Amino acid sequence: MINFCPKCAAPVSLEIPAGDTLPRHVCKKCGHIHYENPRLVVGCIATWGERILLCRRAIEPRLGFWTLPAGFMENGETTAQAAARETLEEAGASIMIEAPFSMVSIAHINQVHLFYRGKLTSETYAAGDESLEVTLAKRDEIPWGDIAFRSVTYCLERYFDDVARGQFGFHETELAPVI
Amino acid sequence: MINFCPKCAAPVSLEIPAGDTLPRHVCKKCGHIHYENPRLVVGCIATWGERILLCRRAIEPRLGFWTLPAGFMENGETTAQAAARETLEEAGASIMIEAPFSMVSIAHINQVHLFYRGKLTSETYAAGDESLEVTLAKRDEIPWGDIAFRSVTYCLERYFDDVARGQFGFHETELAPVI
Repeated sequence: MINFCPKCAAPVSLEIPAGDTLPRHVCKKCGHIHYENPRLVVGCIATWGERILLCRRAIEPRLGFWTLPAGFMENGETTAQAAARETLEEAGASIMIEAPFSMVSIAHINQVHLFYRGKLTSETYAAGDESLEVTLAKRDEIPWGDIAFRSVTYCLERYFDDVARGQFGFHETELAPVI
Repeated sequence: MINFCPKCAAPVSLEIPAGDTLPRHVCKKCGHIHYENPRLVVGCIATWGERILLCRRAIEPRLGFWTLPAGFMENGETTAQAAARETLEEAGASIMIEAPFSMVSIAHINQVHLFYRGKLTSETYAAGDESLEVTLAKRDEIPWGDIAFRSVTYCLERYFDDVARGQFGFHETELAPVI
């Protein structure tokens, strides 16, 4: 919610700046234009042998449901650093990043969810502040009906498909609102 | 530059909110936390036969240098829609998106540059407001010494490598500041 200019505190108005095509919050006093853009949520499908590292969420949204470690990318880091940081913060696990694996655009919430493949560097993990518990699950142990987000289900499904065909790709899709 | 709360106009202070790990601009009056995150710049390496669609920049940074059509992803669109929109706006060209092709993290400017592969739907293009001219260039016609951004050079080089090996992949790297 942008009511006032974050630079000079004057009220802003929503208008299309000269040379632009979309309405922005513009300060009538100092001229500052406040852009809002989609955010990247970055995470990792991290494995130890055949097992996948999963976290049960301790926070909303989707408290109590299972997810891959992931979170908002921060300024000053790379996407791969964001994936490793989130895996350490939420699952207490150190990983070796392998490659980008899946990307999901969710336009109605202004997010892009990006997951890397990675390998745990040891069989060590522990729930961080945002997780109720963390586990390593084989395919048939994954709580498929209790996954927190559709982008996570998409990533898990593509992962096991790629394991079955013996080759990892990079997978992309978009998700529309659930009616 | 965040000096005042965009929600209530009170002065903000830079502090680490409870349960967080990084300093944020926090409003002492209404409690609003202002997050700033990396932005996605999305574009396309669009082809017509063997030729690549290139734009010469009419705006800073790098005015006069050559680039692939690309720009900041907007709220409410998917990454693929952003790539197609930018190609239409900057190069007047309609494309069929093929697949994500390259991703470059540039941590020191809080950006991630994502390029798709795409094909022009007809041999039609025209300079938009942000381009001085637009052209279709074969490999040996590309002005390699006058490319605007390193992420564009990376994308072009990977593209021709993949053409040579007969298979397209998804390519990722990160760029550090030029010393």
